[in-house]
Amino acid sequence: MEQIAIVGLGLIGGSLGLDLVRQGHSVVGIARRAETAEAALAMGAVTKAGTDLALVAGADVVFICTPIDVTVATAEAIAPYLSEGAVVTDVASVKGEIVPAIAALWPNFVGGHPMAGKAEAGLAVAVAGLFQGRPYVLTPTDTTKPEALERVRAIAASLGANLCQCHPDQHDRAVAWISHLPVMVSSSLILACQGEVDPAIRELAQTLASSGFQDTSRVGGGVPELGTLMARHNRAALLDALTQYQQQLEQLKALIATEDWDALRETLTQAKTARPSYLPAASTQR
Amino acid sequence: MEQIAIVGLGLIGGSLGLDLVRQGHSVVGIARRAETAEAALAMGAVTKAGTDLALVAGADVVFICTPIDVTVATAEAIAPYLSEGAVVTDVASVKGEIVPAIAALWPNFVGGHPMAGKAEAGLAVAVAGLFQGRPYVLTPTDTTKPEALERVRAIAASLGANLCQCHPDQHDRAVAWISHLPVMVSSSLILACQGEVDPAIRELAQTLASSGFQDTSRVGGGVPELGTLMARHNRAALLDALTQYQQQLEQLKALIATEDWDALRETLTQAKTARPSYLPAASTQR
Repeated sequence: MEQIAIVGLGLIGGSLGLDLVRQGHSVVGIARRAETAEAALAMGAVTKAGTDLALVAGADVVFICTPIDVTVATAEAIAPYLSEGAVVTDVASVKGEIVPAIAALWPNFVGGHPMAGKAEAGLAVAVAGLFQGRPYVLTPTDTTKPEALERVRAIAASLGANLCQCHPDQHDRAVAWISHLPVMVSSSLILACQGEVDPAIRELAQTLASSGFQDTSRVGGGVPELGTLMARHNRAALLDALTQYQQQLEQLKALIATEDWDALRETLTQAKTARPSYLPAASTQR
Repeated sequence: MEQIAIVGLGLIGGSLGLDLVRQGHSVVGIARRAETAEAALAMGAVTKAGTDLALVAGADVVFICTPIDVTVATAEAIAPYLSEGAVVTDVASVKGEIVPAIAALWPNFVGGHPMAGKAEAGLAVAVAGLFQGRPYVLTPTDTTKPEALERVRAIAASLGANLCQCHPDQHDRAVAWISHLPVMVSSSLILACQGEVDPAIRELAQTLASSGFQDTSRVGGGVPELGTLMARHNRAALLDALTQYQQQLEQLKALIATEDWDALRETLTQAKTARPSYLPAASTQR
């Protein structure tokens, strides 16, 4: 059993704590607000809690689970308190900026991204088993220490997550496609519909919208702060994905404008054929 | 009890028949292929079946449930066999072209669009209760006879559908937003990801894609023939919706390009706030 510290007790930090406490680890949780620390203790997400960053002292492994805009600053703030040899990891959904910045502060660092989320954020929605069967990406670089990597791998594996390993920049380009681009595509769909100038048509559209619209608009109606942070910290890859998406949409629109129905059918067939490769192998296709 | 004819025994025609037969109506089904007619009879979707359009003779109400590209031609083909006073309705997902064309052939016509679908098409996936709680749009015009409208309304209501009434052109503009535009937005997302030139990134994206991507891409991976027919028969409204969508996406991209994070957060908040108006009032938000 290890001494683990979790800095930031939201959905991810809290859910991680619930699993690790159940495994018998000693888990100290550090939150910005005392009420959050108390709530985490009350729900069994930590075995000890407080608001003082010095509580990381003595931890073998430290998970930084803050919002991504303060991940690096948090690493900097806890560095003076870390035990020699402590392994630090994070859970930020963007890695390209964060990994080299923290590695420079604390060489025993391993970037991580457990890909589990919910429509809502915060400790109140934390649950045990959140990471079960979900991807957990680790992003070692040339300078990452193998023992540190192995330490984080073992914990991630104990959560039942599907481990995956790649370079931070590869991670960011991949998540731009399948996580950040969909948010922008989906929110623009909602906003475009809202732009309908005839109120009778807009009201009719709202009445007639069914599961297809609801699914396509779901991630676009997610937490605005998360979407903004994703864009901010993965700006280059997201802009590139958006540009390629715009070109693809323009091509498809041109087929409709020129009434090239055979080519449109062929294009939609390509989309249908490609989609299953983005679904978990075991899942029933929806 | 009425004498009802259903021309076209796919998902919609078959499901309609299952409900109407259970209600005790006499339902004659007409399919292009004899095997389909026999299958419909065997599963209880019709009380009589065949391939001869002359079977519509004697029906009080005729539902044309063919693919939309042959709806008008089917109306033309059955017209010589219709009893005087027979009410004809259709289920095509696009109304602007079809309603005036059929009304010119048979004045006792009422355009309809039951908004129920499935990922797959065909009689094999027909089920009883498909229309329960789903929108059923009727599109009368100035020349629609009130008795004919009332006749179709009563049957649609008996299916448990939520009746809704509007002009054919209003219908087409509304479904362009919430049904046809999402297909193009969603298929373009899949195709843009497929356009990633680095195979390692593409494979990683496929591995990491989770429920967010799956939901956003679902309608884009639907039946290509349906997407093509929608675009073909609702071209003007869809092109208009696509253009407005492109403008919206470009605005959002500009906020990212110029790093205007406050405005991006505000824009995503607008999307989140607007989305519930497109969800059924009774549904739990997903």
